[in-house]
Amino acid sequence: MSVIRVTVWNEFLHERTNAAIAAVYPEGIHGAIAAFLNREADIRCEGVTLDMPEQGLSDELLQRTDVLIWWGHALHEAVSDETVRRVARHVHAGMGLIALHSAHGSKVMRALMGTPMTLSWRHGDSEKLWCVLPAHPIARGVPRCIEIPEEEMYGEPFAIPNPDEVVFIGGFRGGEVFRSGVTFTRGYGRIFYFQPGHEEAPVYRQPEIQRIIVNAVRWACPALRLPEPEGNIHCV
Amino acid sequence: MSVIRVTVWNEFLHERTNAAIAAVYPEGIHGAIAAFLNREADIRCEGVTLDMPEQGLSDELLQRTDVLIWWGHALHEAVSDETVRRVARHVHAGMGLIALHSAHGSKVMRALMGTPMTLSWRHGDSEKLWCVLPAHPIARGVPRCIEIPEEEMYGEPFAIPNPDEVVFIGGFRGGEVFRSGVTFTRGYGRIFYFQPGHEEAPVYRQPEIQRIIVNAVRWACPALRLPEPEGNIHCV
Amino acid sequence: MSVIRVTVWNEFLHERTNAAIAAVYPEGIHGAIAAFLNREADIRCEGVTLDMPEQGLSDELLQRTDVLIWWGHALHEAVSDETVRRVARHVHAGMGLIALHSAHGSKVMRALMGTPMTLSWRHGDSEKLWCVLPAHPIARGVPRCIEIPEEEMYGEPFAIPNPDEVVFIGGFRGGEVFRSGVTFTRGYGRIFYFQPGHEEAPVYRQPEIQRIIVNAVRWACPALRLPEPEGNIHCV
Amino acid sequence: MSVIRVTVWNEFLHERTNAAIAAVYPEGIHGAIAAFLNREADIRCEGVTLDMPEQGLSDELLQRTDVLIWWGHALHEAVSDETVRRVARHVHAGMGLIALHSAHGSKVMRALMGTPMTLSWRHGDSEKLWCVLPAHPIARGVPRCIEIPEEEMYGEPFAIPNPDEVVFIGGFRGGEVFRSGVTFTRGYGRIFYFQPGHEEAPVYRQPEIQRIIVNAVRWACPALRLPEPEGNIHCV
Repeated sequence: MSVIRVTVWNEFLHERTNAAIAAVYPEGIHGAIAAFLNREADIRCEGVTLDMPEQGLSDELLQRTDVLIWWGHALHEAVSDETVRRVARHVHAGMGLIALHSAHGSKVMRALMGTPMTLSWRHGDSEKLWCVLPAHPIARGVPRCIEIPEEEMYGEPFAIPNPDEVVFIGGFRGGEVFRSGVTFTRGYGRIFYFQPGHEEAPVYRQPEIQRIIVNAVRWACPALRLPEPEGNIHCV
Repeated sequence: MSVIRVTVWNEFLHERTNAAIAAVYPEGIHGAIAAFLNREADIRCEGVTLDMPEQGLSDELLQRTDVLIWWGHALHEAVSDETVRRVARHVHAGMGLIALHSAHGSKVMRALMGTPMTLSWRHGDSEKLWCVLPAHPIARGVPRCIEIPEEEMYGEPFAIPNPDEVVFIGGFRGGEVFRSGVTFTRGYGRIFYFQPGHEEAPVYRQPEIQRIIVNAVRWACPALRLPEPEGNIHCV
Repeated sequence: MSVIRVTVWNEFLHERTNAAIAAVYPEGIHGAIAAFLNREADIRCEGVTLDMPEQGLSDELLQRTDVLIWWGHALHEAVSDETVRRVARHVHAGMGLIALHSAHGSKVMRALMGTPMTLSWRHGDSEKLWCVLPAHPIARGVPRCIEIPEEEMYGEPFAIPNPDEVVFIGGFRGGEVFRSGVTFTRGYGRIFYFQPGHEEAPVYRQPEIQRIIVNAVRWACPALRLPEPEGNIHCV
Repeated sequence: MSVIRVTVWNEFLHERTNAAIAAVYPEGIHGAIAAFLNREADIRCEGVTLDMPEQGLSDELLQRTDVLIWWGHALHEAVSDETVRRVARHVHAGMGLIALHSAHGSKVMRALMGTPMTLSWRHGDSEKLWCVLPAHPIARGVPRCIEIPEEEMYGEPFAIPNPDEVVFIGGFRGGEVFRSGVTFTRGYGRIFYFQPGHEEAPVYRQPEIQRIIVNAVRWACPALRLPEPEGNIHCV
């Protein structure tokens, strides 16, 4: 069995500056995600953070990453254009990308989607996550409805391009709805955006949420990875 | 200004057998829809019902119909295969089709979609209808959220093919969500499925719902209508 | 390793009535396809034909079929409505379907697509098959261009619904183009339509064509197979 | 009748540095396009070029532009990031965009698509342009096949995101094929990419090509134009 190499990137701010959030994720959100992924026999996951050299994402690391997971929120603008270009280039060459929660507004996602990625939002809500495509690989073993007791509301209109697939739709206690799990392809790379994961609640400790992320890792793992994105081909 | 000729077809059962529903729509659901459409200068709408000759849908009528609106529920199986074939053939040749509420399960929709069109449901709910694509022609002049005080819940998974566009998503008081406004193309014909319109509540008297149906009529009106669906073309 | 059970259905007419075609496929088209699929360790394929009991497709056989391959041409109308309903029901419950060449116009495909499936055509052409999505699983190990020395021309407009994905586009010596490899989802079932395979030339003996069909079998194999299609769910 | 205000932007290099190209388009490609658009009663078109103040695209001009047409080739990198941001912002707010020929690789298109936009190419070919969606508004009045006697070959794989619609597919004398007319939505803006228009041949003087561009202008004209792209909405 071949192993899927996953890198989970975290801006790693809230867990170091807010005691309540540190209590939820003492190991950092990246640590929590890496922990449950590393329980899978076919996945090896490493966490990196914004304050590391090359913002945690050297070309060498990205080269050996099959799937990159991104969690960012307050420090989107601290990510350099160079880092964004490096990540986008690897996605175009086949690296999978899973963007979690507030990563909708990250520079990486805005660069890959070409849209503002805006939405409506409100703190202190709860979400029911409904499966729209039960036969999709990302929905494997996932119940028809997942209840997330505490989650930030994200609502439509969500300024994404027409997605390849809508796999999950979220409904919030406040009445709003959101395309909470959507797929895209950019170049050779598969992208999954997944709404759950507000930092104040232990959403990534919920087994059904973990199952979806594990499924998404396997789905996003490239069948074909180029050393670099294809250029124009001059035929003669 | 050219006029869009709309035919609204109704199985017309509940309004004649249930006093409470008759009180909501004494003129029949078809009559209520025709009335608000006929207030538009560029639309001329006629109502027809299942108990008419040729089930209300002669070839001659379909030939001069730009957009057909369909409301059916308890009598889906009473619609003959011949009527279904006639309607589908005109859709393939360019006639627009708007399928309302329980028409998701009509023989016409199942024939055009190729899927079971199943869903989950519950009486006695209310719906918030959210606009996902505010720039879509069907959403013109429609607020970000429409509240429908009394509506039957329809929930995911909704067994439709991947739609061309998801224009509206509904959220229900019970927590369920639904792709409540979706578009498809079949042959030269444009199709809009729209969830609201349970027969026990005056949903089609709500101005925002009327606005969406008026918009959908203009959107579905064919730019190009063939006398009959294109056959195979033998090139020599 | 689990085994993918494939059934290849053939109307099996031309190979028994036309000496030139019999010389190309003495074992029948179904036999030729079964032979190369059975060389794969993870695939077990069985051929069936229209003249068998229950037109070769008993409910019991379909129940244990992961992926059904369909080749039909002159006898489309001989396939009974009952057989079509049986096949469609299993696709809706998750069975994969690969429709080859003239199967575009089969009753099964027309029922699942909801469109006339018409196109333009001409005998005696050749095709260059171009890969549009090189990272798609169906394109794994497939060169950028496959030359098919002798192939019937199929040309646009091809009256299919908007496909989930266009994986291959064919260009013909006569100048026509065609969406030659397209995917759809219907219920829980994945569908791949693939243009090559005119009966007068040994197209299914070409290794690149075999590779695509092998890939498509693995792609269409269901992750989730229900005993029967999901019905409406009444929530209380 | 309301008037659609079109701005056609041209890098305007080849027509000033190459005598053969200057002979084809003495008024510049922008001048040729503006001329045939201005023959339409409902369109008013103005040409601008890279060497103008603010690279021809001031915020004030973009604000009153319904549809922007873009022709660029050798000077893609001369377009400033600031210009790209300004154009993208107006597309997100609803301005239509038509990208012609080598504009596939422009910074504006790469920013809006999020992909490398690479392809294969060869000078000195001819194209047959086939209509895939004859009922699409952009195909109104367009024949099934348009012959372009002299055109640069652009071939697959074309590294675009999965388009909303494939309206035209081109086939080239050399045997290659290309998704030559494709649509996208980004924010409130509609985008049409159209392959024909190599600078060495009078492609934009061909009436069928002009018809497609006129149709595309009407299709891309926004139903709803915001003063600026929608931001995140904080609900309370």
